[in-house]
Parts: sequence; structure tokens; C-alpha cells
Amino acid sequence: MHYLEDFAVGQKYLTDTVAVTPEDIKAFAAKFDPQPFHLDDEAAKKTFFGGLAASGWHTAALTMRLLVQGSLQPAGGIIGAGFEEFRWPRPVRPGDVLRVESEILEVRESKSRPTQGIIKVRNTTFNLDGDPVQVFVGSLVVQRRKAGA
Amino acid sequence: MHYLEDFAVGQKYLTDTVAVTPEDIKAFAAKFDPQPFHLDDEAAKKTFFGGLAASGWHTAALTMRLLVQGSLQPAGGIIGAGFEEFRWPRPVRPGDVLRVESEILEVRESKSRPTQGIIKVRNTTFNLDGDPVQVFVGSLVVQRRKAGA
Repeated sequence: MHYLEDFAVGQKYLTDTVAVTPEDIKAFAAKFDPQPFHLDDEAAKKTFFGGLAASGWHTAALTMRLLVQGSLQPAGGIIGAGFEEFRWPRPVRPGDVLRVESEILEVRESKSRPTQGIIKVRNTTFNLDGDPVQVFVGSLVVQRRKAGA
Repeated sequence: MHYLEDFAVGQKYLTDTVAVTPEDIKAFAAKFDPQPFHLDDEAAKKTFFGGLAASGWHTAALTMRLLVQGSLQPAGGIIGAGFEEFRWPRPVRPGDVLRVESEILEVRESKSRPTQGIIKVRNTTFNLDGDPVQVFVGSLVVQRRKAGA
């Protein structure tokens, strides 16, 4: 469990990996992003993506699971306050294996809430080739260590 | 189906609504964001959220489904290139009914790809009280109308 005082600019945190199957891609899409390039191999060939690709929101959701189970463990949980950058540089394809690397960019105390602070983190999701498939810079709410804790 | 030439700054697009049940919140969280404030009513009371709240990624995924089924229908599909703002101003609670309003902020031709352009869109997800629960400004890839089409 990490408190605000435990974080420092430049620290890196890693996650485990997750494999993305075509079934996963289609099931997520059917529920949340029902577009041809996420649902059907044949139909996807004629689209922008040129073949089946995961919904970006699926990549985001899988990234969150990796983060929750990873080494970045803020006290109070991983609570996003917002983002200032969010990109999907390339599609996630069936069979891709994803992992996330998080780097601390900024650590600051909250002015309005003395028990909390904010860390700014760049979270990059990579495929097995080492290519980034998602990059986001997010601000997380983190608890400060209580006096004496 | 809307081509780049059909979009203009200031246009607004609406969606249908979706109700968020406690079962939905917990099922999404179990799969993608297994943290106490998204999984368990009792445990959630002692957290930052003070009660069960949907994962922000669940809100994002539901927003995407509303958009795909809504009145904003770019030719080629809804394909996000990235975001420049992304916030969750307040939690989504069990029983909330969500809808999305999209406003076109910018329309421009692509310099590198003559068949495409980019529209910048602010997508605000509201609950039934009219309070925003998610705001994001995203850039979408949109096809240009072919000569003669």
C-alpha cells in the first residue's frame, strides 16, 4: 500500500500480462461497442482497421484490470480524477498480449483536502512487440499517511 | 451516415438512455475493475465513494454504446483518435439513468490522408438529474464524401 509520501517522480510500476482472444474482443464489442470492425472478422477487413480490432474501451478496461492487480497500489484504491492525454497509437489485435508500465510524473498535496494528494501517472499499455497500444496520463487521488502511521 | 462535409461547429447530437443496475456495476467491476467501491455495497461505504459506484471505465463503455446507437453516425464508424480532456465529475450510482449529448467543436481535413478528416467532439454523459458524470473531448476520424457521392 502506497501513500502520497511514498511516491516520487520517475518511479516505475509494472503489471502482469493479459492475452486478448478474438472471443473476448467480440463479446466486449457486442455489449459496449457494436461496430463491424470489433464484431466480425470478415466485415472488419473492409473497414479502417483492415481486420478485427479490440474496442479502445476494451483496451482501457483491460488496462485497468492489469493496474488494479499490478504493483501500483495507492492507499484507498486506484481512483482516477481525470486525464490530460489519452491515445490509442495502434489497434489491439486478436492474440495480442498486453502489459502496462506506469511512470510517476508528478506528486502534489491537495490544497482543499489535507488528507489527500494527487499523483500524475503516465500509463502505457504495450503489446508483446513492445509497441504502445494505449497511452494515458491520468491524475489519481491518493491518501496521505496519517500522523504516526 | 454523416461525412466530414456534413459536420459543422455547434451541431448537437443526442442518444437514447441506459439504466445502470447494481448487478451491472458489480459484474463489470468483477471483470475489469475489481475494487471494493465497485464490487460490494457494504465495503463501499467505508471508501472515498461512500457507497457503491460504477467503475469510470464502465461509464465510458456505456457511453460508447449510447454513442454507437445514437444520432451521431460518422461514415466508417465511430473511431476515436485520442482525447484532450476526460473527466468523471461525479460517480455513477446504482439506478442512475444515463444519456449522452455530443457537441461538434471543430471540423478539419486531414493533411496526410485526403480521404479523411477529423472532428473534435465534446461528449457529456448526464444522469437523470441533469448532472454530468463524464465529460470527454475526443477527436474522431471521419471519411470525406467521395466526389460525386
